[in-house]
Amino acid sequence: MTTVIKSKSPGVKPRHWLSFVDHEPNELAALVKSAREIKAGRDQHAADAIFGRILGMVFFNPSLRTRTSFEAAMMRFGGHAITLNVGGDTWNLEYRDGVVMNGAAAEHIREAAPVLSRYCNIIGVRTFAGMKSAAEDAQDALLRAFARFATVPVVSLESATEHPCQALADWMTIDERFGSAAGRRFTLTWAPQAKATPMAVPHSAVLCAAAAGMNLTIAHPPGYELNADVLARAKQWCDRAGTEFMVTHDQAAACASAEVLYVKSWGSPQFYGDADGQRDSFARHANWMVTQRNLATSESVLMHCLPVRRNVVIADDALDDSRCIVVDQAENRMWAQAAILANLLGPPSGRS
Amino acid sequence: MTTVIKSKSPGVKPRHWLSFVDHEPNELAALVKSAREIKAGRDQHAADAIFGRILGMVFFNPSLRTRTSFEAAMMRFGGHAITLNVGGDTWNLEYRDGVVMNGAAAEHIREAAPVLSRYCNIIGVRTFAGMKSAAEDAQDALLRAFARFATVPVVSLESATEHPCQALADWMTIDERFGSAAGRRFTLTWAPQAKATPMAVPHSAVLCAAAAGMNLTIAHPPGYELNADVLARAKQWCDRAGTEFMVTHDQAAACASAEVLYVKSWGSPQFYGDADGQRDSFARHANWMVTQRNLATSESVLMHCLPVRRNVVIADDALDDSRCIVVDQAENRMWAQAAILANLLGPPSGRS
Amino acid sequence: MTTVIKSKSPGVKPRHWLSFVDHEPNELAALVKSAREIKAGRDQHAADAIFGRILGMVFFNPSLRTRTSFEAAMMRFGGHAITLNVGGDTWNLEYRDGVVMNGAAAEHIREAAPVLSRYCNIIGVRTFAGMKSAAEDAQDALLRAFARFATVPVVSLESATEHPCQALADWMTIDERFGSAAGRRFTLTWAPQAKATPMAVPHSAVLCAAAAGMNLTIAHPPGYELNADVLARAKQWCDRAGTEFMVTHDQAAACASAEVLYVKSWGSPQFYGDADGQRDSFARHANWMVTQRNLATSESVLMHCLPVRRNVVIADDALDDSRCIVVDQAENRMWAQAAILANLLGPPSGRS
Repeated sequence: MTTVIKSKSPGVKPRHWLSFVDHEPNELAALVKSAREIKAGRDQHAADAIFGRILGMVFFNPSLRTRTSFEAAMMRFGGHAITLNVGGDTWNLEYRDGVVMNGAAAEHIREAAPVLSRYCNIIGVRTFAGMKSAAEDAQDALLRAFARFATVPVVSLESATEHPCQALADWMTIDERFGSAAGRRFTLTWAPQAKATPMAVPHSAVLCAAAAGMNLTIAHPPGYELNADVLARAKQWCDRAGTEFMVTHDQAAACASAEVLYVKSWGSPQFYGDADGQRDSFARHANWMVTQRNLATSESVLMHCLPVRRNVVIADDALDDSRCIVVDQAENRMWAQAAILANLLGPPSGRS
Repeated sequence: MTTVIKSKSPGVKPRHWLSFVDHEPNELAALVKSAREIKAGRDQHAADAIFGRILGMVFFNPSLRTRTSFEAAMMRFGGHAITLNVGGDTWNLEYRDGVVMNGAAAEHIREAAPVLSRYCNIIGVRTFAGMKSAAEDAQDALLRAFARFATVPVVSLESATEHPCQALADWMTIDERFGSAAGRRFTLTWAPQAKATPMAVPHSAVLCAAAAGMNLTIAHPPGYELNADVLARAKQWCDRAGTEFMVTHDQAAACASAEVLYVKSWGSPQFYGDADGQRDSFARHANWMVTQRNLATSESVLMHCLPVRRNVVIADDALDDSRCIVVDQAENRMWAQAAILANLLGPPSGRS
Repeated sequence: MTTVIKSKSPGVKPRHWLSFVDHEPNELAALVKSAREIKAGRDQHAADAIFGRILGMVFFNPSLRTRTSFEAAMMRFGGHAITLNVGGDTWNLEYRDGVVMNGAAAEHIREAAPVLSRYCNIIGVRTFAGMKSAAEDAQDALLRAFARFATVPVVSLESATEHPCQALADWMTIDERFGSAAGRRFTLTWAPQAKATPMAVPHSAVLCAAAAGMNLTIAHPPGYELNADVLARAKQWCDRAGTEFMVTHDQAAACASAEVLYVKSWGSPQFYGDADGQRDSFARHANWMVTQRNLATSESVLMHCLPVRRNVVIADDALDDSRCIVVDQAENRMWAQAAILANLLGPPSGRS
C-alpha cells in the first residue's frame, strides 16, 4: 500500500477559537496586543502566517460585515477565503448522532467537517441562536460539533452564545482610545429594537469588559437577564482583577459614570416564540433608546457592534457625535481577526 | 491617548467614478487611452496600482457580466475582489436622513459606507432604476449617498441613470475598430423587448457618442424620450465638437447612414407601473427589432451591451454577422474597468 | 483599422474535459498519475500552469464540495476562481438555435460562452439531469453547447450524464490504497435514498472502474438500469483489458468479493415525474442500505461521493469503519482537478 493520504496526527487536536470562556484573560490580552501590532504594520510574523493559506467560511445565517472583514483580513496578507452561504434548502447539516437521515439534512457534520478540513487550512463557522430555548442556544451544538470533527482550527464567526471576534475588536478599540482598557468604567446598556435579536454580542461585551479588567455595569429592564454562566464567568474575572461587577435596571445611573457606553438590544427569553409580546415590551421600553445625553463626559465613547437602527436603538445625535467610535470598532474586526487567524495558523509552511 | 486609528484626512474627498456627466470629454478620452494601453500590456503603472488592493462590490440587484469583468480586472493584476449580493431581505440600507428605522432597513448608509471603506481600497455599487418615477430614478439617491459617506473612491457598477463603465468600454471598442471614434456616425436605436428595462445604458451610449466626438442620431418611437438633462449634456458636447445631434422617430433613416449601430431597448416612463400597456407597446413596435438589413455598409458595426434576447431585440442574422462586435464590447469592460480602477487607486502603496 | 482585439485563432479548437467517454484509458491514467505527483508536491510544472490563471465556474445547480475543491485547487497554486451561481430566475440561458427569446431566458449561450471566455482562462460548468427523460439527459445539451461556443477550455463540474472529476479522484484514491487499481475487484452497488438522484456519479464510477482496469460488478434492483451507451463503453474497456464486467440484481453476492465497494443511490427512469412511485420503490428496497457486513475483507474499502444520508444510504457502522475512505475521495477531488486544470491550461504564459 503506497498511500500519501494526509492523515490526522492521532492525539494532536487542532486549537480552536470558539469563545472567550475557553481562554484566560492573559491569552486574550496577548491577542489584542498582536492585533494592534498587525494594524501598525509591525508584525511581519503574523502576516507570514496568513500568506497562501485558505480560510473556508460556512455561514448558516447571512452576514456581510463578518464576511467582508474576514475576507479582507486574509486577502491583505496574501491569503484566500472561500465563503459558503448555506441556507436551509442548500445544505442542511445533521449534527446529532445515530439519526436516520431521511429528513431535510442531506449531509452529516461527521463528513462535512473533515472534508472541509482537507480543502482549507482553517474553518470559520457562523451559527445563530434559534431563540426558541435559551438553554438550547447556550449549548452551541452546531459550532461545537464542527470543532469536534474538524481536523484544522475552527473559528467562531458568531455563534448562538458568543461573538468572540467582536469582543476582541472591541477590547482593541478601547485600548486604542484610552491607552489601556484596564480600570475604565464600562457600561453595557440594553436598548429597544424593531425585532428580537440574540444575546451573543451582549454576552461577548460583558466577557470582554471583565477580561480586560474594566469596571462593569450591565443595565437592562427586568426580564432581560443574560445567561447565568456567562455572568458568573464575568464576575469571577472582575473579582480576580479587583474591579466592580454590577447588574442594574436603572439605565440613567448606569450611564452616568460610563467611560465606555456599549449599547446593544437583545430579546427576552420570556418572549421567545411570542413576537407580539416582545414588540409590546420594546414599545414599553422605547425610552431606553440611547441619546447624546447618555454620554457622561467629553471623554466617554459610544460603542455598538453594528448594524444599528437609528432612532430606535440609538438616536442620530449620539451616532453622529464625535465620541461615537462604531466605525473604528468595525475596522478593528479585520485586525483582531488577522491576529486570531495568524495565531491559529501558526508559522508559515512551504506547502500547506 | 495612544490611538493609531486610520482617520479620514479632513478636507481630502475621495475621487469617484459615478457618471459621464461628472467629467469632461478629455478626461474620459484619457481613460480610454489608458484602457487600450493596459489591454496591449504596455501600462505597467496601472497594473501596479491594482496589485494587492481590495475592491468591495455591493450589488443591490444581481449581475453576472459586471461582477465577472470587475473580478477579472482585479485578479489579473494581483488585486482582490469581495462581492456582496444584497437583496431586499438581507441588507436593506437606509439612505434618508433623520428616519426612525423601524422598517425593513436594518442599517444606515452613514455606517455602511464608512465601514466598507475601512475594509476595501475602493467600493463598487450597483443600483437599479426603480422604474416607478423617472424623476426619482434621475436622482440616483442610493449611489450618491454611498459616494457621500464613503471615505474611499466609489465606482458605479451601473446605476439608475447611467452605466459609465459600459460607455467607456464601448468608446474603446469603437476606437479599436475605426482607429478613432471621432467623426464617425453613431446611431442609437430603440428596440422592443420581452419586458421593460431601464434607461441607464441608452443614456450612457448617448453620452459616450457625444463625448467621443461622434455624429449622434437617436431613434425611438414617440413616448420613449430619454432624460432631458442627459440629452442636453450630449447636445452640448456635440455642439462643442461641431458634430451632429439628432433625435428621430424614423428608425430606417437613422440606421441608413450609421457606421456604429448601437441597439438597446428601454421602457417608456408612461408605462411605469403598467406592465400590460408596456407589453402592448412592445408588440405594436415589434418591427423595430434590428436585423441584418439595418447594417448600412460593409464597415458598419453592430453593438449591444448584452444580455440580448435573440429574435426579439436583434435578429439572429445580425447577431451572427461578422460585423457584430458585442463580444469585444463585453471583453473591453474588463480593460476599461482596469483603467478606471487604476486611475482611482493611484500609485501603489506598500501598505494600504 | 488598428484593432488589438483578442481573436479566436481560426481552426484551433480548445480542448475540453467533459466526460470519460471522450478519452482513452491511457490518457486518463496519465491524469491520475499527474494528480498524485501534484499531491506529493513533485509537479512544479502543473503548479506553474495554474499560477495567475482565472477559472470561471457557472453553477446551474448549487454545489459546495465541487465549488470548494475547485476554488482550493486554483488558490493553492496562485490561481483565481470566480463562482457564478445561476438560478432559474437570475440567468436562464437559451441554448437552442433560432428561438424567439421572449420567455424566461434573457441570454443565449452564443453570447454567454464567448464572453466568459474573454474574462477567464478556463470555464467550469455544472449542470444537472432534468430527470424527466433519460434520453434527454443523455444528450448533455447545455454542457455541450458551452463547449461548442466557448473559446477557452471547458471543464465539466458534473453534468446530466457524468461526473468525470469525481471519477478521476476515485481512481486516484483506489491507486493510493492498493498501489494500483488495475486487477482489483470493484463493485458499484445501488442504495435507497430519501429522494431520487441522477445517474451521473454511478455512470462515472462504472467508467472509472473499467478505464482503470478493474473487474467490475454493478448491482441494482430491476428497473434501475444505467445508460446503455455508458455500459457498452465500460464493457468495451473491460473486454480490452481482459477484466470481468457483470451486472446483477444480487447485492449480497456482488459485495461478497469486492475489494472496492462503491455505494451510490440513483432514481429509476420509470419513476421520473412520479415521486410517490419512487418513494415506494425506495421503501421496498430499504434493505439495500449498505452496512458494515457488506465489507467483504479486512482490506476492502468503502467509497461514496458524498453527501451521504446516514442510516438511509449507508449505516453508521460502515461509515465510521476505518475502511471507509470517503474523506480521502473528497480530498482527492482537489488534486485530481488541479491535474485536469493544469493539463488544459498548458504551460504558463506571461500574459494570459
